[in-house]
Amino acid sequence: MKVAVLGVGLTKFGELWETSFTELFVEAGTKAIENANIDGKDIDAIFVGNMSGGRFIDQEHISSLIADYAGLTPIPSTRVEAACASGGLAIRHAIMGIESGFYDIVVVGGVEKMTDVLTERTTQILATAAEQEWEANLGMTFPGLYAMMARRHMHEYGTTREQLALVSVKNHRNAVNNPYAQFRFEITVEDVLNSTVVAEPLRLLDCSPITDGAACLVLASEKKAKEFVDNPVYIIGSGQASSTISLHGRENIAIMDATINAAKEAYKRAGIEAKQIEVAEVHDCFTIAEILAIEGLGFVKIGKGGKATEEGLTEIGGKIPVNTSGGLKAKGHPVGATGVAQAVEITLQLRGEAEKRQVNADIGLTHNVGGSGGTAVVHIFSK
Amino acid sequence: MKVAVLGVGLTKFGELWETSFTELFVEAGTKAIENANIDGKDIDAIFVGNMSGGRFIDQEHISSLIADYAGLTPIPSTRVEAACASGGLAIRHAIMGIESGFYDIVVVGGVEKMTDVLTERTTQILATAAEQEWEANLGMTFPGLYAMMARRHMHEYGTTREQLALVSVKNHRNAVNNPYAQFRFEITVEDVLNSTVVAEPLRLLDCSPITDGAACLVLASEKKAKEFVDNPVYIIGSGQASSTISLHGRENIAIMDATINAAKEAYKRAGIEAKQIEVAEVHDCFTIAEILAIEGLGFVKIGKGGKATEEGLTEIGGKIPVNTSGGLKAKGHPVGATGVAQAVEITLQLRGEAEKRQVNADIGLTHNVGGSGGTAVVHIFSK
Repeated sequence: MKVAVLGVGLTKFGELWETSFTELFVEAGTKAIENANIDGKDIDAIFVGNMSGGRFIDQEHISSLIADYAGLTPIPSTRVEAACASGGLAIRHAIMGIESGFYDIVVVGGVEKMTDVLTERTTQILATAAEQEWEANLGMTFPGLYAMMARRHMHEYGTTREQLALVSVKNHRNAVNNPYAQFRFEITVEDVLNSTVVAEPLRLLDCSPITDGAACLVLASEKKAKEFVDNPVYIIGSGQASSTISLHGRENIAIMDATINAAKEAYKRAGIEAKQIEVAEVHDCFTIAEILAIEGLGFVKIGKGGKATEEGLTEIGGKIPVNTSGGLKAKGHPVGATGVAQAVEITLQLRGEAEKRQVNADIGLTHNVGGSGGTAVVHIFSK
Repeated sequence: MKVAVLGVGLTKFGELWETSFTELFVEAGTKAIENANIDGKDIDAIFVGNMSGGRFIDQEHISSLIADYAGLTPIPSTRVEAACASGGLAIRHAIMGIESGFYDIVVVGGVEKMTDVLTERTTQILATAAEQEWEANLGMTFPGLYAMMARRHMHEYGTTREQLALVSVKNHRNAVNNPYAQFRFEITVEDVLNSTVVAEPLRLLDCSPITDGAACLVLASEKKAKEFVDNPVYIIGSGQASSTISLHGRENIAIMDATINAAKEAYKRAGIEAKQIEVAEVHDCFTIAEILAIEGLGFVKIGKGGKATEEGLTEIGGKIPVNTSGGLKAKGHPVGATGVAQAVEITLQLRGEAEKRQVNADIGLTHNVGGSGGTAVVHIFSK
């Protein structure tokens, strides 16, 4: 498979109280269309990743809302949802739309408006990504779920509290150079260790924030892309896997099997191996999640993620820079938009347009997770 | 395009207080898998149409939940949503999954559990399919929106109150012979005209009910299907279109332009014309909606739908039997499931398995609408 990324667009990520859900999507989409140098009339379909318009803004049917406000009716517009993996999933189904021959050029975006409700309600809404009957209804929240994974990882593999903190320190450092990031300031290991406890062992600075934002790509078939640009970045692999929605169903909560399975499919479709990846955006909703990700993706052996982080493997300048954008932790995590924003960053890196956070890479990867690992989506990009 | 329907499965439609959301999907899915005579291990992916798990049962990420409870992890599982068109949309994206070469065999289902919340909250949840800012927040509900369309249609084309009632009378008559239908009793024009006013001119018996239920199909590539069955029913056309989410944005609310545009694409892909359709399941969420549907699909000229209904065109025994299942009105309308349930009925009709409601047909059509027509999805089936 081979689908071209013709254009990318991002809104600023943050608490955007003066910008509506629809305005966010249209802003990112317009930027992507301009970046692709195409016209609105070239677009055959829209795909939207969104976790919970229904609860964050009381609005379902956002596919129609977006097509309407973008002035793109009557083209097909589809929302896909798998909690925080909604963005990555939208990309995968946009690819299928193109590879099936239904469409030549599509806009695929992700969007979430999370700050229109009170914070305690946001926590409840995010918990709808976990199983209600066996997790959320009993009071479990996402920091709690990832805290259990962190504890188990520390127990099984000797991962340290400081290694977890180093994920956050790195991602904050990277975000300083990302003009779209929510938090553009550095933090230290001590800052993380001294921040408020959220769910032991995770503290405030281990957790990604609540964010408004949108991200869009323009994708095109290989043939169609050549009409617009000589050497686009291509998506050459896609993988998606499911797992049990709740942690108690998993054999081992110190690994994320959906990541392993999604990566396997993506590598196979791309015809490459993990060791060929040169830059990656992974789903660091909590610090432990980045460690689980780099292990599940095969960048390091299972259990070695903490140590590898400590040794600088994933820093800019390391062997596989991870979350050069600042990641979910520091760039921000508008849940439905995240998977698409990851693809924007990898495209910029492969184009050589990542400015002060530029790394040297020909092949990149995105990794997007829903819930505590009930869904994972992986994409592989190549120059 | 040509994708085979290998199996179909339905739950009973109704107020199923003793059956959970997950149990509904798994029951319909198991029936479809048994009907297809395949094993769980043959399935490459799951697609789920669902309007608002997030609000009806406080659960997003239902793709993972369903894969988990169906015992089908780690295969990819995806939810798509476009309000009441979610089921039809799931079928379309399952087709893309197959036509793109990503999958050989998929389960595509729709499910909604609507009776776990109070009725007034159900009305609010359904109103999230309309634009919040300009419709729902001002007190507009779906009966109100369709009542405006009905009034305009009566004004423009002389459609009568009795013609609207005849849609309901026909669909109730058909449902008597559908063991899965919610309402298996006949009603008269007088019953409709004397029922409680909901939103003038629409009365209670003009409106589809609140329903729990699920429906599933097993779809396969043409090549793969031949390993399992000699002469499956095929889906030979698919169309999807968007329109403005709110009525005030439309040029004419007495026509449904998304239906017209989706039908155009579906007929083109199938290489057929409207006059070749011999049986159809259309989106009669309100009686006026069936009239708008048969006009938009090209079965009759715009404005002639009421008259054609009166003359018996759409009855069993008429030229194009419509809603032989009982339609949304009498079979029931579990919103996310409806589009898939329509496909189950057309498959049964083309297989000759529709028992006492059997008609003589080689080519059939399904038509599924989201909101007041912000989304429409059309599929064409052939023996």
